Amino acid sequence: MLVVKTIEELKEIRKGLNGTIGFIPTMGALHDGHISLIKRAKEENELVIVSIFVNPTQFLKGEDLSTYPRKAEADIKICQMCKVDYLFMPEINAIYENDEVLIKAPQNSYVLEGFTRPGHFDGVLQVVLKLFNLTQPTNAYFGKKDAQQLALIGQMVKNLFIPINIVACDIVREISGLAMSSRNIYLSVEQKEEALKISKSIYMAGNLISKGERSSKLVKNKIYEVLAGLDVEYVKVVDKKFNEIEVIEPSNTIILVVVRFGSIRLLDNIWM
Amino acid sequence: MLVVKTIEELKEIRKGLNGTIGFIPTMGALHDGHISLIKRAKEENELVIVSIFVNPTQFLKGEDLSTYPRKAEADIKICQMCKVDYLFMPEINAIYENDEVLIKAPQNSYVLEGFTRPGHFDGVLQVVLKLFNLTQPTNAYFGKKDAQQLALIGQMVKNLFIPINIVACDIVREISGLAMSSRNIYLSVEQKEEALKISKSIYMAGNLISKGERSSKLVKNKIYEVLAGLDVEYVKVVDKKFNEIEVIEPSNTIILVVVRFGSIRLLDNIWM
Repeated sequence: MLVVKTIEELKEIRKGLNGTIGFIPTMGALHDGHISLIKRAKEENELVIVSIFVNPTQFLKGEDLSTYPRKAEADIKICQMCKVDYLFMPEINAIYENDEVLIKAPQNSYVLEGFTRPGHFDGVLQVVLKLFNLTQPTNAYFGKKDAQQLALIGQMVKNLFIPINIVACDIVREISGLAMSSRNIYLSVEQKEEALKISKSIYMAGNLISKGERSSKLVKNKIYEVLAGLDVEYVKVVDKKFNEIEVIEPSNTIILVVVRFGSIRLLDNIWM
Repeated sequence: MLVVKTIEELKEIRKGLNGTIGFIPTMGALHDGHISLIKRAKEENELVIVSIFVNPTQFLKGEDLSTYPRKAEADIKICQMCKVDYLFMPEINAIYENDEVLIKAPQNSYVLEGFTRPGHFDGVLQVVLKLFNLTQPTNAYFGKKDAQQLALIGQMVKNLFIPINIVACDIVREISGLAMSSRNIYLSVEQKEEALKISKSIYMAGNLISKGERSSKLVKNKIYEVLAGLDVEYVKVVDKKFNEIEVIEPSNTIILVVVRFGSIRLLDNIWM
């Protein structure tokens, strides 16, 4: 595996690459969720590029940019073990300059996560587009856990005719059921125990719908029951364009749950 | 030459292309300025793609979108004679949908042309990025006449790490000196005669600077003298980042002139 630190080096390498390339953009602190994306990319491509870049433009003021977990050494080791071909770890100043051409996410980027974090998705799309242009992959891999991010990246690719295939990958969970997240390490033992209600509520909702339930309201109420005692930010039933829906339509429904533990936000969801 | 009407067809064709590709995005009504871009692209690339698309998002309300000259048949003929390989002429609905991911041009897109036409460059960058992603050229050709457009496209390519080489091409003029423009056909014979003052003022400024003049103020005053009697919108001396400068610095100076004839705006400039 080659660790690539500069844009110039990456550009030079990319010019010499042929064949299918799988790309996984990450913010590091790699966990089994990321590893599952890398493994899938290894299976489906001749070469795999991973990037690690804690992207400042997707953090709002007061968010955890400075304390976001950074584990470069462990991350490099993990990528080596996964037989990643190129690990791109650029400096912030190499990626951004002042007064840039910006990306403006569409209106549906200001609901749900974008309601709590206005402008967050502009920063996500900006860095993803830069990384896409630098790596020019055949396939790019994203987890379904960040469902709205995945949808908006898909929309950007469609709107701008970016010649990259976006691969949506299932959520990876701890044995307990808790959805993998780099921010899980912030949780105390007690909070982690409490947080299990989230995946339980998600499973329960999936079961209800599998058995034929079609009322969003009823499913949401049942979820709130399971989440009792937690600081629930939202429970939403949306279609794949992130419009809220009253009637659940299998194969076009996502159920999203966000719970807070102090300043930590835990996301989970299920795609029907 | 193949005339390509749909995105699907273009994507399919592009997948099968190898070698260097030169791309010239246009709004049609092709004149000798465009032809010079095409010829240069032919010399420097194995294949040449031209697009014709009157892009609605770069016209402001009240501008000449509906009356912008459209000459599809003549344009196709010209491209054939220039031995263009692929002429892409998409429908508006194929390029745009509602509530899209947008491009936001930087601050320096709101001076000069962007001051008169706020938001114009957002639309320019949006369509150029789409066309770049569809055609994935090696080299893309733009005239220096739209100097600020050229600079902003260069900045977008740099900021977003788009793997395309932008080729800046000299202004092509009618024998009289008038800079080629699709909008010249709006001019009456008398206006065309009067408009010759523009290129005269530009040549004069170039001569002054060649002889050692370094004062922007003096050069601008001399230009205004030559333009006497015309409705001058602006005369500016800027560096290549479009900041106005007091002292002319050869190899980093552009002198820009915009003159109005009623609702018709004529641009000219010289790059030192």
